[in-house]
Amino acid sequence: MILLDLNPKSKIPLFKQVFNQLKRMIESDILKPGDKLPSTRILAKQHGLNRTTIYKAYEELWALGYIESKSGSYSTVRQRTKVVNIKINSNESNLNWEEKISSASMLLIEPDNKSVAKSSKKGIIDFTPLSPDPEIIPNEEFRKCLNETLRENDGNILLYGDSLGYKPLRKFIAHQMQLHAVHVNSSEIIITNGAQNALELLLKLFIEPNSEVIIETPTYSAIIPLLKYYHAKILEIPIKEDGLDLDILESTLANHQAKLLYTMPNFQNPTGITSSQAHRERLLEICEKHQIPIIEDGFVEEMKYFGKNILPIKSMDKSGLVFYVGTFSKVLFPGLRLGWIASNAYCTNRFLEIKKASEISGNMLIQAALELFCSKGLYEMQLKRIHKVYRKRMNIALKTLRENIHNPNIIYTKPIGGYTIWFEINNSNKLESDLVQMIYQNSVLVTPGNVSYYSASEKVNFRISIAHRNEAEIEQGIKIIAKTLNTLKD
Amino acid sequence: MILLDLNPKSKIPLFKQVFNQLKRMIESDILKPGDKLPSTRILAKQHGLNRTTIYKAYEELWALGYIESKSGSYSTVRQRTKVVNIKINSNESNLNWEEKISSASMLLIEPDNKSVAKSSKKGIIDFTPLSPDPEIIPNEEFRKCLNETLRENDGNILLYGDSLGYKPLRKFIAHQMQLHAVHVNSSEIIITNGAQNALELLLKLFIEPNSEVIIETPTYSAIIPLLKYYHAKILEIPIKEDGLDLDILESTLANHQAKLLYTMPNFQNPTGITSSQAHRERLLEICEKHQIPIIEDGFVEEMKYFGKNILPIKSMDKSGLVFYVGTFSKVLFPGLRLGWIASNAYCTNRFLEIKKASEISGNMLIQAALELFCSKGLYEMQLKRIHKVYRKRMNIALKTLRENIHNPNIIYTKPIGGYTIWFEINNSNKLESDLVQMIYQNSVLVTPGNVSYYSASEKVNFRISIAHRNEAEIEQGIKIIAKTLNTLKD
Repeated sequence: MILLDLNPKSKIPLFKQVFNQLKRMIESDILKPGDKLPSTRILAKQHGLNRTTIYKAYEELWALGYIESKSGSYSTVRQRTKVVNIKINSNESNLNWEEKISSASMLLIEPDNKSVAKSSKKGIIDFTPLSPDPEIIPNEEFRKCLNETLRENDGNILLYGDSLGYKPLRKFIAHQMQLHAVHVNSSEIIITNGAQNALELLLKLFIEPNSEVIIETPTYSAIIPLLKYYHAKILEIPIKEDGLDLDILESTLANHQAKLLYTMPNFQNPTGITSSQAHRERLLEICEKHQIPIIEDGFVEEMKYFGKNILPIKSMDKSGLVFYVGTFSKVLFPGLRLGWIASNAYCTNRFLEIKKASEISGNMLIQAALELFCSKGLYEMQLKRIHKVYRKRMNIALKTLRENIHNPNIIYTKPIGGYTIWFEINNSNKLESDLVQMIYQNSVLVTPGNVSYYSASEKVNFRISIAHRNEAEIEQGIKIIAKTLNTLKD
Repeated sequence: MILLDLNPKSKIPLFKQVFNQLKRMIESDILKPGDKLPSTRILAKQHGLNRTTIYKAYEELWALGYIESKSGSYSTVRQRTKVVNIKINSNESNLNWEEKISSASMLLIEPDNKSVAKSSKKGIIDFTPLSPDPEIIPNEEFRKCLNETLRENDGNILLYGDSLGYKPLRKFIAHQMQLHAVHVNSSEIIITNGAQNALELLLKLFIEPNSEVIIETPTYSAIIPLLKYYHAKILEIPIKEDGLDLDILESTLANHQAKLLYTMPNFQNPTGITSSQAHRERLLEICEKHQIPIIEDGFVEEMKYFGKNILPIKSMDKSGLVFYVGTFSKVLFPGLRLGWIASNAYCTNRFLEIKKASEISGNMLIQAALELFCSKGLYEMQLKRIHKVYRKRMNIALKTLRENIHNPNIIYTKPIGGYTIWFEINNSNKLESDLVQMIYQNSVLVTPGNVSYYSASEKVNFRISIAHRNEAEIEQGIKIIAKTLNTLKD
């Protein structure tokens, strides 16, 4: 049994105290390579702590190479030879890098072991990936476009290029946005390394340490480390059936001066919720009143399967307050690393300076090849193709859920597009992590809800994404999930 | 004549006062569209100011769209309709973005009009580009490798990939570095979007606002906005014939706690200077003593033409203090946007977290195609090919200089590799900008020295790069430069 000496009144956060003491035990060989650590639940119980606290300490130990965690098993102390540390080839001083690195980068030491580890277990139905199925990627068509681009351009396409992005591609994007009633021109668009990089550009442009940023909760998990890195102060607004709770937003804004609001109005990640036109109008009105720039993340704008179209917030934006983030990652493929921000000319020029300082320019070859792909009508064709595929997949998923889940404590969303379905288990006698583990033992991998929350959530949630699974797998996987959930009744 | 009301004792910097007053004059139509502004020299003289002050104010006006500058002509007030500003489609409030954006991004408003504007004037010999000649880029070979990569991989190569970079490419880089006596393994290497992005990752990892960073002066111009963006405090150490002045470095370190030192030991940009093995050893010793991480920018490591090889500082680094930055941009082509940092395992893991937060992962397709290119021996072949080409070009350049410049006040460097030659004109009766302008009027474009200085330089310098020019152009261009410089005697 591990006994920790913790001081709740100390300025050092509890998780850090736990971390420090375990680290010391490992370094002084009290805990030896191969030793099992107690489960987070047991250690938390023994010390009267929140389980998240222990979890965070273990994560940090993991990140620094002190322990190994295998999904579905105990954490163990690593072989010291494997400890991630700087090589000492001589008797030079052993640098303490932790003292040297920036506080911002320290905040990133909470890596993706927060989610269920990828497993190599055979026969697993993996509902975690959120990018198009490799089976339906237009590999061959894109190859031809790349080929043609390199054949028909001289070496100049391989030099530095326009830091805003390849102009014909920006024109295509502007055109595409017009189909969604958004009127921007190519000089109001900057091409980024995927949507993630677009979000970073936005934070770089607007955020100072302690700037307040409003996010939906739950939200896109990968914006959380980014907000931490930029020392943003995060204000969480819960999401309801119709999008973020506007009443809570208004009351929050009565006492706060937010610098940005981040929202995904369509098929929100992770919940799959889509807000109505009326909701969007009111949201824009509130933000206009308080002059809060909106990041509208349209990461799956094009992937609507059922019902009539709802226009982006950006389409109603008369004062240039909305920053529309788009991406080719969820419709074509993420390997392109191409996304964009459509906003106003002033801010686009500012993004340009930031982009130049970061990496001079993007990859013109890939951008030109994609533009060729689009100009041949292949983008539209691919869109139709994957629409058809995913409409069916989503239908199968919802049908299987309808037929197999009858417990009123088990709530799931019914998305009209996108790839994700969100589950909430009320009155659960299991912790979320245990439930996710139970599902995994039945050979289905889902994403635990907690990764999508900034403040640790007390709820029991998980997300499934149908992006990489075919209809048979979806049906089978959801049946397994339903069966596992139905045991909770006992 | 424009009269400004300036207060040297104000907390507002003088250039900002000049900027504010001119902006107000433009906004209130005292200065009308098309009106000429006085030259920076005249306005500076009238108000007893340094010319750089006026220059900075004009730059900011330009960046915000208030004025237009044409190279070799006066700045004029822009047509108001062209003013870069947010679109107002309605009577919504006109946002003041400048009040909303971060102070860091404001610091980037000093864009590349600092260098001579690109000209479309015909027959210009342009000595400014610093990337391989499009004529000798192995376009066709790379096309084949891309093609083969897409043919032989399934769609997975088009998904997200390893955020450290495609592992076989990291292995190739590790192998390549061993040829320079640097022993790192693939887990100590992260692949970045070119060297610029590598520099940003380093600043992100180490720099807090007001952290001190040591740079050579003059230095790589594009690191300056990056350092500004991260609010680094810049310490400038002059560069001598044998690299940065180590005596000044030591005396500086007596009173400063620098977080990083940035150096280019080979064919330094802009000067072309290469430091000796002994210099490198002493530099490393000094940094070890003060525990200052070194960024060793090896952007043209492979491009040595004359004399015996000198080993990178990283090859002598026993305590893991050196961060070696490499790039494929200057040997293959910049459009790849591929560079790397070779360092230690601890920091590589930290870079990984930062990279994930910034953009999830890089472009695996390009990385895999490059790896295929390298594994086929094409990298080595290309290296030999461009060595041969550039050795000749550098020889011609140095020979033409030797034969045409005899004025002891005109000093130029004699690089043993790389692409750049640096000029310094002593006792000049012309300002640097006027001299660059004179050369331009004779149809040769060079890079003014000032872009490579953080603190405005009083010296008269310029840089030529032979990267994009063939032997005939080099000979002709340098003769024109020499002729122009020789008129200075009068």
